Amino acid sequence: MTAEQLKQQRMTYNQKLIETDSFFKSFGELDANAYADGAISKKNKELMGLAISVVTRCNECVLYHLETSIKAEATKEELIEAIKIGVIGGGSITYPNARFAIKMIEELLNDK
Amino acid sequence: MTAEQLKQQRMTYNQKLIETDSFFKSFGELDANAYADGAISKKNKELMGLAISVVTRCNECVLYHLETSIKAEATKEELIEAIKIGVIGGGSITYPNARFAIKMIEELLNDK
Amino acid sequence: MTAEQLKQQRMTYNQKLIETDSFFKSFGELDANAYADGAISKKNKELMGLAISVVTRCNECVLYHLETSIKAEATKEELIEAIKIGVIGGGSITYPNARFAIKMIEELLNDK
Amino acid sequence: MTAEQLKQQRMTYNQKLIETDSFFKSFGELDANAYADGAISKKNKELMGLAISVVTRCNECVLYHLETSIKAEATKEELIEAIKIGVIGGGSITYPNARFAIKMIEELLNDK
Amino acid sequence: MTAEQLKQQRMTYNQKLIETDSFFKSFGELDANAYADGAISKKNKELMGLAISVVTRCNECVLYHLETSIKAEATKEELIEAIKIGVIGGGSITYPNARFAIKMIEELLNDK
Amino acid sequence: MTAEQLKQQRMTYNQKLIETDSFFKSFGELDANAYADGAISKKNKELMGLAISVVTRCNECVLYHLETSIKAEATKEELIEAIKIGVIGGGSITYPNARFAIKMIEELLNDK
Repeated sequence: MTAEQLKQQRMTYNQKLIETDSFFKSFGELDANAYADGAISKKNKELMGLAISVVTRCNECVLYHLETSIKAEATKEELIEAIKIGVIGGGSITYPNARFAIKMIEELLNDK
Repeated sequence: MTAEQLKQQRMTYNQKLIETDSFFKSFGELDANAYADGAISKKNKELMGLAISVVTRCNECVLYHLETSIKAEATKEELIEAIKIGVIGGGSITYPNARFAIKMIEELLNDK
Repeated sequence: MTAEQLKQQRMTYNQKLIETDSFFKSFGELDANAYADGAISKKNKELMGLAISVVTRCNECVLYHLETSIKAEATKEELIEAIKIGVIGGGSITYPNARFAIKMIEELLNDK
Repeated sequence: MTAEQLKQQRMTYNQKLIETDSFFKSFGELDANAYADGAISKKNKELMGLAISVVTRCNECVLYHLETSIKAEATKEELIEAIKIGVIGGGSITYPNARFAIKMIEELLNDK
Repeated sequence: MTAEQLKQQRMTYNQKLIETDSFFKSFGELDANAYADGAISKKNKELMGLAISVVTRCNECVLYHLETSIKAEATKEELIEAIKIGVIGGGSITYPNARFAIKMIEELLNDK
Repeated sequence: MTAEQLKQQRMTYNQKLIETDSFFKSFGELDANAYADGAISKKNKELMGLAISVVTRCNECVLYHLETSIKAEATKEELIEAIKIGVIGGGSITYPNARFAIKMIEELLNDK
């Protein structure tokens, strides 16, 4: 799937979760609270989310935080540095996710 | 153990690993490369390491990145925001590590 | 792939594992032992398996335990509650699996 | 540490987290929401939490859900069945947590 | 995707990672160092990598270590034994990866 | 705790698990089956178990597989190579376990 298709699928099913149970609305608000601009800037928090996505080996999370990092004006250099921190933290088993990240970066930065 | 005792133990056995096999020296250098000041600042990288330590539930890593974040002049507010990002990412199973982090922050900031 | 295709694929390769080595037959029996009706009912054990599948972020496991929970007469409300327990336990990195679960629930409950 | 000491430590630092940032109060409320009596009974949800604690290899979580399961009137047989589901799901690397669980069950059920 | 397509994709994006940042070249060299023929033979190290790939539930890693194990002249019996060690270590949540492994073994050994 | 104390504690509570439910006896037999001398030698399987213990960050497992590897006549060089494979696979978050391993190796090899 392309980055755009994955994004659409994410939005569709996040919406269904929220419609199914208010728990998911509250969880989403708490997530937004944690990632809001604060003592650490929004951009650096999203890059933090990207590093976490690599280390926990979650490709859908990688794509989400690439999108939000780019929206917060992160540069390609910053994206790569966050990915490196994920890889050194999580080891060679994170390589499939680092490869996915570089593939999505190509798509997302061409789209810009 | 206190923060200081845990730090001493970490340094002792990291040294033994390096003396045992040059692999560990190279790995340490690669880790230092990833965490070096760059497009993302040293401070924000160490805070990223703290968030990763919470989400991966590694207490020795939590203490290490608290130390390095504070050395890079992170404030208590920034430390707490990084911990929150770890907790929302990794869920309630990260609470023992968030509790450990707050305990270590008390020790480390009193020591300053 | 559809729920049905994923189920067929699971059955095909589980069978091949069993034909390859008796270890997999024994492991399957031990799994059946753990999930058998007992002090905890079969239904509640399968819902437990669903929560575990979410928290460990295993989509094939999510589908399997949705099937077995529904077969044990779990309601949609019970499925959602088990998913919520997985999400609060494992955090936002389990969202892709919660989304997958809600998608599969649509398919499985329409099929009924 | 004894079960009682671990419990006291958990309560002390959970309180400090809540005092430090309202995020932790909200997260705690969401956790309470997920574990509230509902389509699945409180007791079965706490046993589910116990199985999750074993599979995610979190000893402090194991102790917490043993306490809450026993408070919700789970029997020793039910506790053991939840632990078995954790072990078959997460494999031999969960044995240290199964051993910890059986040790804590001895303490908690004698205390009753 | 077939084993061959997955292999091509891995090689393409590993190359892009290396071209993007020298960190990935160094990490690859360190990985090669760890897996080099030594006190433990190359073959047994690759089988070790296979067991790790199953226990950490990384399908792209499973395929990679199947390829390298077969190249190092591991037999089907040895591959299966390594997979069993991964499954007993990581439990039933590794079954999707054991199924993937047996599927890839069919492709790879027919290709030989 | 010393290696010897950890070993005693492991044996005590493994025994209690077996006395509590026959599931644990069967699981132990299946584990013994997977680790038995076969196409892969007993020694190489125990070293594989050591690498898995590091990558999954399980210290009690690290100690167990150090003991069984040494009993199967693994040399210090082989132990270190298995640890390296765990570290490169699982990244810097496995360092606490690599440090624990080197500490236990000192104790176990002096004891010999």
